[in-house]
Amino acid sequence: MAEFTIARAAEFEGQEVALRGWLYNLRESGKIRFPIFRDGTGLMQAVVTKADASEELWSRVGALTQESSVIARGTVRREPRAPGGYELVLRDLEVVQTVPEDDPYPISLKEHGVDFLLRHRHLWVRSPRQAALLRLRHEVCRAAREFLDSQGFIETPAPILTPAACEGTTTLFGLDYFDLGRAYLTQSGQLYIEATAAALGKVYCFGPPFRAEKSKTRRHLTEFWMLEPELAYATLDDLMELAEGLVAHMVASVLERCRRELETLERDPRKLEALQRPFYRLSYDEALKLLQQKGSQLPWGEDLGGANETLLSEHFDKPVIIHRYPAKAKAFYMEPDPERPELALCMDMLAPEGFGEIVGGSQRVSSYELLRQRLREHELPEEVFSWYLDLRKYGSVPHGGFGLGIERTVAWLAGVPHIREAIPFPRMLYRIYP
Amino acid sequence: MAEFTIARAAEFEGQEVALRGWLYNLRESGKIRFPIFRDGTGLMQAVVTKADASEELWSRVGALTQESSVIARGTVRREPRAPGGYELVLRDLEVVQTVPEDDPYPISLKEHGVDFLLRHRHLWVRSPRQAALLRLRHEVCRAAREFLDSQGFIETPAPILTPAACEGTTTLFGLDYFDLGRAYLTQSGQLYIEATAAALGKVYCFGPPFRAEKSKTRRHLTEFWMLEPELAYATLDDLMELAEGLVAHMVASVLERCRRELETLERDPRKLEALQRPFYRLSYDEALKLLQQKGSQLPWGEDLGGANETLLSEHFDKPVIIHRYPAKAKAFYMEPDPERPELALCMDMLAPEGFGEIVGGSQRVSSYELLRQRLREHELPEEVFSWYLDLRKYGSVPHGGFGLGIERTVAWLAGVPHIREAIPFPRMLYRIYP
Repeated sequence: MAEFTIARAAEFEGQEVALRGWLYNLRESGKIRFPIFRDGTGLMQAVVTKADASEELWSRVGALTQESSVIARGTVRREPRAPGGYELVLRDLEVVQTVPEDDPYPISLKEHGVDFLLRHRHLWVRSPRQAALLRLRHEVCRAAREFLDSQGFIETPAPILTPAACEGTTTLFGLDYFDLGRAYLTQSGQLYIEATAAALGKVYCFGPPFRAEKSKTRRHLTEFWMLEPELAYATLDDLMELAEGLVAHMVASVLERCRRELETLERDPRKLEALQRPFYRLSYDEALKLLQQKGSQLPWGEDLGGANETLLSEHFDKPVIIHRYPAKAKAFYMEPDPERPELALCMDMLAPEGFGEIVGGSQRVSSYELLRQRLREHELPEEVFSWYLDLRKYGSVPHGGFGLGIERTVAWLAGVPHIREAIPFPRMLYRIYP
Repeated sequence: MAEFTIARAAEFEGQEVALRGWLYNLRESGKIRFPIFRDGTGLMQAVVTKADASEELWSRVGALTQESSVIARGTVRREPRAPGGYELVLRDLEVVQTVPEDDPYPISLKEHGVDFLLRHRHLWVRSPRQAALLRLRHEVCRAAREFLDSQGFIETPAPILTPAACEGTTTLFGLDYFDLGRAYLTQSGQLYIEATAAALGKVYCFGPPFRAEKSKTRRHLTEFWMLEPELAYATLDDLMELAEGLVAHMVASVLERCRRELETLERDPRKLEALQRPFYRLSYDEALKLLQQKGSQLPWGEDLGGANETLLSEHFDKPVIIHRYPAKAKAFYMEPDPERPELALCMDMLAPEGFGEIVGGSQRVSSYELLRQRLREHELPEEVFSWYLDLRKYGSVPHGGFGLGIERTVAWLAGVPHIREAIPFPRMLYRIYP
């Protein structure tokens, strides 16, 4: 027999179980007490009546304080009026630790300010919405790996400690590395997994990159998680196909396995059910035309930027891929479009409903000479990139990949506006505690 | 039809395929040429005869240099004498990029020194042994997640950037975090996932911790990967059971899915097949007795240390769990044994064949007062740990977890002596490049 958890209560109907958890709330109605317990998998109402309970059990339930830890024993009964459809007919209650009345659990069931909640993040994660977000995050990551693993991808972690900057040093966290001088926390594993892609064909890394950006938007964390697949012998079309399949699989898995979480988050599942493939695809030129119709003044050649991305993201009811941006607006390692060399073979995927960019990727420059020229144009030191140049010297192939931001994807699927709630312990410009 | 890869050659017998890869080696035998290709999933011999090939194809194959990238077209034929059992009857060869003869691929097929290889790690990962190690690593991590996910664990990443030290500051990498002062790279996610375990019941984190240790052993990296499960309402017995089940599942998965990799690594699968549960369990007292029989002078009360661990590890043919160490040799957060308070409710798992510790864990102190006392005894600042103390104030429960070192586990299962080969880009005291 499986272990009892609230999420699996239906399987235990009519059985005597032990619920190991915490008191979430206590309701009273005359001679009936309804303690509501949580065990990490959900909430469950228990019921005890003064007439049937011992004096001791009755008063022990009445004295329960919020978040006191308990082992509650009783029988699982179907009760359509209870949240989740089942309740626990309480027979016995063991109090593991009592939260004292004069030092109560700080996060009461009323509203709190976000600064207060972030300072108490170690407790805030217990709240039903936050716990649902973390379970949904888990499913998003699990589904992403499942999708890639089933296609033969090999996970090859990129290093966090790197000797040099990928895209400038102003947004890097630096530290002293023994006698070897300065080291930096990585902003992306891409360069490294271009090497493992040449070794293993299809790879990904899935780790925390860091950005020391002094921005305070709802879409920035200094430490976040990014899934980065990279493929040898791949074209921009392959990358768009892969990104679309990956995101569609994440959506389908959330719908299949996170119904309760979506309900807790008050996220309408129909919004996600509508996200059927194919997604939309627009070239940068087409996107610019659409933006101009919407009143944007953006001149050709510049990156879209957050405001325009939001405009596009609000225009579509499904994710939209924008491809072939002007090369000068993009990173040094992007392969030019052979038909129009002023364009890069790159793509971003924007989530709908104004959530904006969740994926960014490109084919990578495969020519040794062109890559050297790009390094010079971007005033990047060639010796630091000599190992990266080697990849073009020894068996260079068309290849590419993309990065998918986990917190942005989770925030979108969950329908929460700020990505700080999509990670257990967010790190921001003014926050590194707890 | 699935895409052709060398690993799946058998499915394509008799069919015309396109192998997208690189030249690994070229053998000649009179009027027959045998280019051996790699595509990231394995090695495959192709065959072309002077009599049947066009002049152009014959000479193009003859001019191939090591690691030149190619698309080789031909028919898959069963050939028991070929490595892998299949060969490619070459019909056409497209050279994507030629490695020039006057600047050849630096890692030839003869032996190289390890310093040279580590400096060329971005290319060394292409070598069959290194590629096999990375594929085996992938399977170890995939199987571990599969095991935990199937038991209802939720992955909750712990932060890398932390405001304070978990176990002293001498082995920490520090950096400046905007206006908030010093921050440190985490050494373990444990403290943080104790908070998420109280929220979600069963959780794990799986990320890179860092140790700025000035050690140069074959078992240390400054950046490594650790899988850390943490469970609310868990006892030491639960933890030993979980660790044993987890490691047994990893072993079984490697045996099921990595036969080719074990062959490439010349790792005798019978060594792994012998690792059936139950593993061995010894108390610290029993382990000490055994060590003394083997001539060790270790006095009661001290941690075992590397040399004694190796002795024990060599004594057993399966993993052995050592439990209940003297509390004073262990970390401040470990729960004392109620029956003998001088012992901690902790355990280490040692891999056999001298590979040593791969798992370390414990129940955590659940009493608020005892934890405060421990912080004082260890001269740790209480205000830094106030959030951690909160977990004991508000619904404390018996709980615990452990950390499993991925590189050590991979090195053991693969039978390689140094863990630097078990990670794509190792970081060590004197190495942060590439």
